[in-house]
Amino acid sequence: MSSQAATLESTDFQSWLRSRIQQVEETLDQTLVPADVVPGRLHEAMRYAVLGGGKRIRAALVYAAGEASLQSGSAAPAQQIALDQAAAAVELVHAYSLVHDDLPCMDDDTLRRGRPTVHVQFDEATAMLAGDALQPLAFEALASMPIAPALVVQAIQLLAGAIGSQGMVGGQAIDCDSVGRVLAQNDLQQMHRMKTGALLEASVLLGGIVAGASSSTREGLTRYAAAIGLAFQVADDILDVTADTATLGKTAGKDAAENKPTYVSTLGLEGSREFLQALRDDARSALLPLGPSAASLSSLAEYIVGRDR
Amino acid sequence: MSSQAATLESTDFQSWLRSRIQQVEETLDQTLVPADVVPGRLHEAMRYAVLGGGKRIRAALVYAAGEASLQSGSAAPAQQIALDQAAAAVELVHAYSLVHDDLPCMDDDTLRRGRPTVHVQFDEATAMLAGDALQPLAFEALASMPIAPALVVQAIQLLAGAIGSQGMVGGQAIDCDSVGRVLAQNDLQQMHRMKTGALLEASVLLGGIVAGASSSTREGLTRYAAAIGLAFQVADDILDVTADTATLGKTAGKDAAENKPTYVSTLGLEGSREFLQALRDDARSALLPLGPSAASLSSLAEYIVGRDR
Repeated sequence: MSSQAATLESTDFQSWLRSRIQQVEETLDQTLVPADVVPGRLHEAMRYAVLGGGKRIRAALVYAAGEASLQSGSAAPAQQIALDQAAAAVELVHAYSLVHDDLPCMDDDTLRRGRPTVHVQFDEATAMLAGDALQPLAFEALASMPIAPALVVQAIQLLAGAIGSQGMVGGQAIDCDSVGRVLAQNDLQQMHRMKTGALLEASVLLGGIVAGASSSTREGLTRYAAAIGLAFQVADDILDVTADTATLGKTAGKDAAENKPTYVSTLGLEGSREFLQALRDDARSALLPLGPSAASLSSLAEYIVGRDR
Repeated sequence: MSSQAATLESTDFQSWLRSRIQQVEETLDQTLVPADVVPGRLHEAMRYAVLGGGKRIRAALVYAAGEASLQSGSAAPAQQIALDQAAAAVELVHAYSLVHDDLPCMDDDTLRRGRPTVHVQFDEATAMLAGDALQPLAFEALASMPIAPALVVQAIQLLAGAIGSQGMVGGQAIDCDSVGRVLAQNDLQQMHRMKTGALLEASVLLGGIVAGASSSTREGLTRYAAAIGLAFQVADDILDVTADTATLGKTAGKDAAENKPTYVSTLGLEGSREFLQALRDDARSALLPLGPSAASLSSLAEYIVGRDR
């Protein structure tokens, strides 16, 4: 018997992923206010920021974790709506964080997903406000999930904790303060766990909460989420040195140019690749107790490790 | 019989207000992460932004509306904790909005509450991230209120709607786009209702939700809140031309210098004062059905109209 959860066949996973991406794109389109509603420029900027075609890995994690956690095997209609809204919520938060990270006072980046960043396409004030307005929209999406209010409150607590000063935004702050310094591997790991890992982990656990995961399932999800959160950043750091700007859709080689500490600068390229494989193995073995319903989640671990952009 | 709700005696109101301000200051101090927790500089900036001694009008509105709505006359311990947390939540949101509004890409202001603004005292990136992290902290404060989960969800929906692209942030976006243009009074009113009014109104209604207000009480609160939300901005516009910088604790005369549309530029100083009194009268008459428990809310209407900073 394998020590890791089974994955889907490659073509099944591709089709699973395509359908979930389509679902979240539709939900985002309906959740965002149309650009002809006042203030139109702000709404246009919000739609530009969110509907720009990201990989939707966080949304996929919500769906996969939800599907792995359903007690009855398949989602009731209300649970399906709730999963859509939770998936949209994490993508709204992710989009807001990218808009703010790209601003001149932060990373000062001009290219994102192959297009001009929001402050370049619009202006700095509009970009800041678009980010500011995407955040409450994410909480609104969670607050309107048609499931038991106690689960809704749990979901909101989880997301709020994950994206605050001891989660995503805190990691961003540490990252800003660390430019030009060499971080110890522990500090680097803490920064990444907060900056990138916290929202990825929250995405997995949100899916579990919405689907009413049992406490043993939640344990498996928590271990999977921790490994996958870190793996994502390690893969990102490797890509920053191995891929080119056209493939990434954002400026490559930025970390080294800015002397930012990364896994590659700390562990080397080979060491980073080995660490990445170990995290992938740990993520997949954490799913073993969940049985075959965790196959899409298991495939997502492979996908995150193997992605080329 | 008077057509307006009674107010508290002046000394009683002063002492009521002092005690509520103290309550929310204590709650904010406990809600904010200590400055010695990593990332320390971010937590320091968040505390600097929030604990800088604002007037706490929004918190006072939460408490007063809560006390006016309690079916049993006085708050159960859990309701009292929930009112503290809701009061803290609206002040966290207000503080975040000030930090972002003061940034160079927005109003570019250097003075706030008589002290250097957050980006001057720290730096732009830290100011932006402090604002970004205050927002989820507000939702966390609401999500942890020890009252029925269905009421918690209502409160979160209300706040999220009030501070998004069709509320506070949307008003800010319209304000940015209107610099140098003359707005019609209707457009000016819509901008202010969103930019300043939405959070003030939400503060009133949050108090009502937490305290389990009946639907007739909610109706009164809604009318009161709409009037008070507008009155606040009219008073602000009058102060911008009649008070000096030392009294205001922020730069006076800024609106005129930047050619921003205000009530004074639209209605004139006398016209603005008359409009302000009419709004005050409307706010107080909306409270009449609530009886004597609405006295602090009625006094707050006087306070907002009569404040000199």
